[in-house]
Amino acid sequence: MSPSHAPAGQRRIDEFDVVAFDADDTLWRSQESFTNAESKFTELVGPYVPPGVDLDDALSAVERADISVTGYGVKAFTLSMLRAALDVTEGSVPAPVIGELLDIGRSMLTAPVRLLPHVPQVLAEVSAHCRVAMITKGDLVHQTRKVTTSGIEHHFSEIEIVLEKDAATYARVLKRIGVEPERFCMIGNSVRSDILPVMALGGHAVHIPYHLTWELEQVDDHDEDVSELASITEVPAWLGIA
Amino acid sequence: MSPSHAPAGQRRIDEFDVVAFDADDTLWRSQESFTNAESKFTELVGPYVPPGVDLDDALSAVERADISVTGYGVKAFTLSMLRAALDVTEGSVPAPVIGELLDIGRSMLTAPVRLLPHVPQVLAEVSAHCRVAMITKGDLVHQTRKVTTSGIEHHFSEIEIVLEKDAATYARVLKRIGVEPERFCMIGNSVRSDILPVMALGGHAVHIPYHLTWELEQVDDHDEDVSELASITEVPAWLGIA
Repeated sequence: MSPSHAPAGQRRIDEFDVVAFDADDTLWRSQESFTNAESKFTELVGPYVPPGVDLDDALSAVERADISVTGYGVKAFTLSMLRAALDVTEGSVPAPVIGELLDIGRSMLTAPVRLLPHVPQVLAEVSAHCRVAMITKGDLVHQTRKVTTSGIEHHFSEIEIVLEKDAATYARVLKRIGVEPERFCMIGNSVRSDILPVMALGGHAVHIPYHLTWELEQVDDHDEDVSELASITEVPAWLGIA
Repeated sequence: MSPSHAPAGQRRIDEFDVVAFDADDTLWRSQESFTNAESKFTELVGPYVPPGVDLDDALSAVERADISVTGYGVKAFTLSMLRAALDVTEGSVPAPVIGELLDIGRSMLTAPVRLLPHVPQVLAEVSAHCRVAMITKGDLVHQTRKVTTSGIEHHFSEIEIVLEKDAATYARVLKRIGVEPERFCMIGNSVRSDILPVMALGGHAVHIPYHLTWELEQVDDHDEDVSELASITEVPAWLGIA
């Protein structure tokens, strides 16, 4: 760390035309609700499972198998929970447990957005200096609901909800919002989804780790030298505006 | 009908910068798969339902209640089927039936796209003269899968998958793709989603009825004078290019 509080690898805001933020676990909490749901799933389904079966592993396996068909998000996760419950109990899970799993999904879909600390202030500061975008993947109806009830929608000049955050998708989004990769900076918690594909295009990216990472977002080792900040509150200083 | 085979209310292609098509039940079959699923639902769940309960009505009521939370599409429909099955049988539906309902949803998500007759030829003809867009609502992962496996993706300069087809959404999409409403024509099977909101913006629209209309897409009477064609094959003639 430099003695002046300027974070390592600091940039200047005028190097960028657009600064984009991921949403889940970057602007608001998300992974906790999945982790809590997984605990409840284990609690509810556990009593009907043959000995020696690891329920967490079974659910992860079903999720991994389902993702190309059902995609990311709570509805897909709910369907995976139900499928896993039926498979692992060989159909012995009672209907009321199925009903409770459906309720878990519904309460995830309707839960109020829980912003991470200082998010509105940071967005206000950055958006006073350049265009700010949100680029998030997941379910269209749930992400839209979160955006519109978050109280932070007005900070974004563009909001993109995409199916998959790979380099081809970023290329399409950057073209659509009219920014060159070298004038674009992405900020997010997932090295796999927010950082590596943007850097592959010649764009800039800042990793802000979250304390939980979904198993399917974890990446193997990579050679990129990734800028990392401890918290979103460090973003304005990193951009030289605080 | 005019004696020259020119459809009523005919326009000229050079009046438009963008001609956009709805997808489900305009370019490819969709509603049949829901109708078939509803029949299977009734067959599977019927034996566990108390006398006097109308299963179709129960499923529609659950869908209507769920739509603001789960949105449009097969995943939402699958969750509604499961919820309706549990509610209506008061939890007496056996787990294997739940498994079969999940299988119905999955097979809908993975079913091959069934294009309506002559769609590729019509798209080729129209796209030779102006920009052609697809504007469809529904689930991001399922609609994307259909687009990429349809064999017609290359005809579209823009593909927009939206949450709801209302006037505000069309205004945003038209701005994004850079076309004035009066230079835009939407073609689709739903008066509620494809026609009225576009006309409300001052755009043009052509209704091509499909033989099935989802209950939640049905509209009450309206005063608009809507252009209607019997089949997508009449579109080139309506645009004066055939």
